[in-house]
Amino acid sequence: MVATERPYKVIGTRPVRPDGTDKVTGRAEYGADVKFPRLAHGRMLRSPIAHGYIKSIDTSKAEALPGVLAVVTGKDLPDPGERIIPTMRGLTPLKWIRGAIIALDKVLYRGHPVAAVAATDQHIAEDALDLIEVEYEELPPVLDVQEAMTEAAPVLHDDMRTEELITAVMGAAGETNMDRPTNVAKHVELSIGDVEAAFAEADVVVEGEFSTTMAHQGYIEPHVSTALWNRDGELIVWTTTQGAFGIRDLLAEMLELPVSRIKVIPTEIGGGFGGKTKLYLEPVAALLSQKLRRPVKVNMTRTEVMEASGPTSGTYSRARIAAKADGTITALDGSFAYEAGAYPGSPYVAGARCAFGPYDVPNQHVEAWDVVLNKPQVAAYRAPGAPASEFAVESLIDQLAERLEMDPMDLRAMNASKEGTRRVDGAAFGVVGNEEVIEAIKQSDHYRSELQGENRGRGVAMGFWFNGGNESAAYANVNADGTVSLVIGSVDIGGQRASMAMTHAESLGIPYEDVKPAIVDTDSIGWTGTTGGSRTTFATGWAVHDAALDIRAQLEERAAMIWDVDREQVTYGDDAIIRGPADEDGNERSFTFKEIAAQLSATGGLVQGKASAKPTTVGPAFAGNIVDVEVDPETGKVDILRYTAVQDVGTAVHPSYVESQIQGGVAQGIGMALTEEYVFSDDGRMENSSLLDYRMPTALDLPMIDCILVEKENPGHPYGVRGVGEVPIIPPLAAVANAIKDAIGVRMNHLPASPGVILDELHPDEG
Amino acid sequence: MVATERPYKVIGTRPVRPDGTDKVTGRAEYGADVKFPRLAHGRMLRSPIAHGYIKSIDTSKAEALPGVLAVVTGKDLPDPGERIIPTMRGLTPLKWIRGAIIALDKVLYRGHPVAAVAATDQHIAEDALDLIEVEYEELPPVLDVQEAMTEAAPVLHDDMRTEELITAVMGAAGETNMDRPTNVAKHVELSIGDVEAAFAEADVVVEGEFSTTMAHQGYIEPHVSTALWNRDGELIVWTTTQGAFGIRDLLAEMLELPVSRIKVIPTEIGGGFGGKTKLYLEPVAALLSQKLRRPVKVNMTRTEVMEASGPTSGTYSRARIAAKADGTITALDGSFAYEAGAYPGSPYVAGARCAFGPYDVPNQHVEAWDVVLNKPQVAAYRAPGAPASEFAVESLIDQLAERLEMDPMDLRAMNASKEGTRRVDGAAFGVVGNEEVIEAIKQSDHYRSELQGENRGRGVAMGFWFNGGNESAAYANVNADGTVSLVIGSVDIGGQRASMAMTHAESLGIPYEDVKPAIVDTDSIGWTGTTGGSRTTFATGWAVHDAALDIRAQLEERAAMIWDVDREQVTYGDDAIIRGPADEDGNERSFTFKEIAAQLSATGGLVQGKASAKPTTVGPAFAGNIVDVEVDPETGKVDILRYTAVQDVGTAVHPSYVESQIQGGVAQGIGMALTEEYVFSDDGRMENSSLLDYRMPTALDLPMIDCILVEKENPGHPYGVRGVGEVPIIPPLAAVANAIKDAIGVRMNHLPASPGVILDELHPDEG
Repeated sequence: MVATERPYKVIGTRPVRPDGTDKVTGRAEYGADVKFPRLAHGRMLRSPIAHGYIKSIDTSKAEALPGVLAVVTGKDLPDPGERIIPTMRGLTPLKWIRGAIIALDKVLYRGHPVAAVAATDQHIAEDALDLIEVEYEELPPVLDVQEAMTEAAPVLHDDMRTEELITAVMGAAGETNMDRPTNVAKHVELSIGDVEAAFAEADVVVEGEFSTTMAHQGYIEPHVSTALWNRDGELIVWTTTQGAFGIRDLLAEMLELPVSRIKVIPTEIGGGFGGKTKLYLEPVAALLSQKLRRPVKVNMTRTEVMEASGPTSGTYSRARIAAKADGTITALDGSFAYEAGAYPGSPYVAGARCAFGPYDVPNQHVEAWDVVLNKPQVAAYRAPGAPASEFAVESLIDQLAERLEMDPMDLRAMNASKEGTRRVDGAAFGVVGNEEVIEAIKQSDHYRSELQGENRGRGVAMGFWFNGGNESAAYANVNADGTVSLVIGSVDIGGQRASMAMTHAESLGIPYEDVKPAIVDTDSIGWTGTTGGSRTTFATGWAVHDAALDIRAQLEERAAMIWDVDREQVTYGDDAIIRGPADEDGNERSFTFKEIAAQLSATGGLVQGKASAKPTTVGPAFAGNIVDVEVDPETGKVDILRYTAVQDVGTAVHPSYVESQIQGGVAQGIGMALTEEYVFSDDGRMENSSLLDYRMPTALDLPMIDCILVEKENPGHPYGVRGVGEVPIIPPLAAVANAIKDAIGVRMNHLPASPGVILDELHPDEG
Repeated sequence: MVATERPYKVIGTRPVRPDGTDKVTGRAEYGADVKFPRLAHGRMLRSPIAHGYIKSIDTSKAEALPGVLAVVTGKDLPDPGERIIPTMRGLTPLKWIRGAIIALDKVLYRGHPVAAVAATDQHIAEDALDLIEVEYEELPPVLDVQEAMTEAAPVLHDDMRTEELITAVMGAAGETNMDRPTNVAKHVELSIGDVEAAFAEADVVVEGEFSTTMAHQGYIEPHVSTALWNRDGELIVWTTTQGAFGIRDLLAEMLELPVSRIKVIPTEIGGGFGGKTKLYLEPVAALLSQKLRRPVKVNMTRTEVMEASGPTSGTYSRARIAAKADGTITALDGSFAYEAGAYPGSPYVAGARCAFGPYDVPNQHVEAWDVVLNKPQVAAYRAPGAPASEFAVESLIDQLAERLEMDPMDLRAMNASKEGTRRVDGAAFGVVGNEEVIEAIKQSDHYRSELQGENRGRGVAMGFWFNGGNESAAYANVNADGTVSLVIGSVDIGGQRASMAMTHAESLGIPYEDVKPAIVDTDSIGWTGTTGGSRTTFATGWAVHDAALDIRAQLEERAAMIWDVDREQVTYGDDAIIRGPADEDGNERSFTFKEIAAQLSATGGLVQGKASAKPTTVGPAFAGNIVDVEVDPETGKVDILRYTAVQDVGTAVHPSYVESQIQGGVAQGIGMALTEEYVFSDDGRMENSSLLDYRMPTALDLPMIDCILVEKENPGHPYGVRGVGEVPIIPPLAAVANAIKDAIGVRMNHLPASPGVILDELHPDEG
């Protein structure tokens, strides 16, 4: 199960990343490093209240402050009317996206932008914000997802009606007739088999209510965007994003420009995890630059990042499982309500579709809701929606094993989904590694070891995620010395320069060191989707592979021309040697890659390869975790004693980076399980909007996360790649909760299981 | 003869250039605008003497100066030994190129670099130069090309032997055995027919000696290069150059790096005219950066540009013409000695091959020499070599017309070269516009007008240049909104962004405004030759055209797929409408470009086009000038009263830029004719190394240059393009000299005909 067993020369090795030196020496240019002569500095004025009408905005005093160059408000953005546009989450009214950028007549959460100032320096811009007079008519906020769904709740959007997702898989939508406004933006219901009958016949039923809170991706680099709207109408944007083309296309819609008038230059990115896939500052920087005709940089403080960039949804779930006495699961049923924040867009569909992924059960039913409330609009966060829904299901599976006195992994093994298993969305799995992951857990040294000691416990849990596909372009140029310059449009977050250079080198049969990758702006490469959804190594890798095939074909043609033989008599071997028929004297004819590269210029010119890949097959991912914890009954603090993460990663292109993805995802999942949460005051103010108070686990809080890579090749990819970045975050929530139950006998159905919560459970009377 | 008669929609129009706003608003980033944190500033120490041995260099005092970061000398550059490398001028010993970058043991001209300093700011670097102690053993310099060819002359290179060019056209070279060193680096001799016999039988013979001096391209932006040699071994260079790939490839040879380790980013360029095709500061900036591991910017002052960047050769020529009494020219003979400066590399071959271009004469002989002497090494300058050689020939043609009492244009017309005419290099012309240019001159209002007044005269002259081809890449991406992003590697000097976008738009049949051109670095596009030799609109335009054909073919395939019909039933029309067979109901099926662009993403992905063109055919260019002058007998000053430039430009892609090229070339030719010269003291010091003393004509010195565009299409190009940038500089030298003769009766066989020279001729006794 290790890459070295495979027939690959480059894939599976662990070379140094091309961008490593720049990043460790501080040379890499991040968003904050973008500087220009006459650069203006912008800051956003944000709503101090969670819900209310904007009665008036008076910017005159701010404009009068020396050093202030321009002020914009919501009125400066074009009115999108009822325009609907395609997005990553299907068709969406542009007004929902626009509203989150800068409020027009209503503020919907504390931190909602209401105006922006550009000044000669940041401090003047800061001061100017205090001089903008905004009159609000405050409204009661709604902060709880269950409350937000009631008829009595304050309504955020008077024109909102519940949208019924007809085919969740396709994302096509209709609308249910409702005569009154609601906070329930969207609803989806999916089922297979006869769930009610199965529960009626069940020997055993387990059920429960679960909840999670908003949690932030916690990327270290705050958002920062610089725009130059030039006098000739060209808009150039430097921004920290996971997807330059996504930003370009949304900006074009919002500013009503053709995409060719906009160039988005992605800076190096200091973490994203899904949170840097949305527009935030770009349109505002553009509007300010349009007024000034000079470059404007707008950035967020850490507090703004926490209060006003998208975390993942808080959720409320109900779920139940029906089973026979022998452990055969007969039915799965789950209802999941997702907080969308101020505007629709929660990952409720993904959460619902993933909930039961690890299990092969004939009767399944899920229902999920996308609910707006007076909190920041959520953004994608690593396997969006799945950690919450699978937390509920995996907790119940653990409960079921308890009830049946079965080993929790044996229970999972006998009900494991596999190739051909039908999912709740009606589709069936292709080749997946679920059973292999379960088996690897059972065989692991960790799982087979004894755990002893008081207040200690062990938990296990599984996780499932679809992984993404989407479109990517690649362009490669053969240099005269036999090296290749590879051009891609995928932002490098987790090592894409290395994994793409490795894939291209593998496809050409040349050394990794001979491929030099470059990531360019939106003017200089074909359309390429966002780096996210575990898609890049998979889909951009596919394009990079196809670009190599293009080069191989052209080199065969060139060799045939040089030798004056038929094209069909020439073959480019995986050893990068081009072989032709023997010559008159019977001598073998061949070129090494470097030999023919040296001849290209003189025989018709150097060779370029290109490809655009849009895979229709994706490689679903399964993961399972084993965790040992110790709970301190005095403080309620939970220590992680040992952690093992097992995952089907498909082919591991660069195993070190695959392990890093797993370790990073697990660390974030542990944060959701134990310490990370958005704490709001009754009036909707986030009370822990700093990294001191918002408690992410650090290296000191965690042991080494051991990784076991299961490499079940994805037949839907030239090299069996699946994508690895997202699924690791799913199992930790339930695994840790199950371990706590094992340690202290209490089930943690609300996460995070922070010390206070645990103490309340252990000593209810001392509340 | 105007583009509008042609079937083109975009070609022949005069749209605004995409880079115009950036350039007029100061946004465009030129070499001097490159800035980084911790940028070090480099300056070069240059030889104060014209010829001598370096006995010792002591840099210790300079290194001790606070703020000085690093010092390099010639010893820091790898020793190229006897390595021979391919260059634009054929195979060249790397040592000749290397020697010009920084002297090793001998200085060969005043201004020859001997060391470089990097410091925290320029002023400290300047001060440090004074602290470097160099001990020279001075040698007598040789400054005159004729003297340099004598055995008595001081020799610059002990290991130099004359290289005999065997086939001038191919540039292949052998070596004549000589037992002693020489300053004559190279020699070429070409002939057709029997020249001596023709002279013996001639009715009339005219002959003369001619000379020109070094003249500088006079680009306004001085040389400036910034290098970052990173800790991972990657070298990034920002430089003002006409050819980023040329710089990259030469740097790779000189620094012994694979090209993939070097990225050259061409900055916007403030003029080049051939002078920015060589390495100057880049290797030194790289060496300093390698020592410091931080970016280093090295720039030249104006004086350094004049003293130490390549002007064009000063020349000495002898030529004669044999003719019959009726004006039929029976033989042409010319000998041309070119100053190479300190190292070989003068355009002696081009000068010799072009000299007789406008004439169809059976007997021709040319001989030319590449001679080193103690002056700066020359660089390419607009039609390198031809202005000097054709000045000699065109002066003699004028003399011949005088002797035969013929109209000088009638004389040229009856001897005009045409399709099929054999040249002195043995090759024959294809389709050329020489006769059309001559006819256009004769029919012009200017030529038919009367010139009256004392000390006034009219002159005419022709000019011929081959034009260049070489390799270029192009890459284009279709956006979903039907616009196209076009990526090229050709530096934009004279409007390439516009001409390439126009060519691509024409080839796709879409509007110019829908094509957005981008010029990228050497990592991000296929190998592309230098912008020079009038090749870019011709050769890069060809690649841009082929990339469009690639897109057209892919869109036909896509439409066939969408309609589910055979590929062959679909055609992409020049109106950018893709038509298919009628459907079952007999309805015509078609897509506009924007319609299919909008469908690409959903039907398999957006489309990219690419091409690499390496044309083997070029489009020779002919030009002719008419000039009226008035000479002030008191001051010797020559005023240009009226000027008309006629040129066969092939298809004029953007007529305004074609006219600008002609007007700029003529202005430079007039400068060579009247005021521009390198004045050296006896010990080899340039005495006029500022733009105050080196007298280039300004707008105040010149009338409007009227242009007549003859558009004889080049059948060797998809749109009949020839290339227009170089030939305009050729005719002015002889045209002006011939006009002065007509005005005051004195032939100017030495140029420039500065006031002092003319006064000496008019009043010899007053000398």
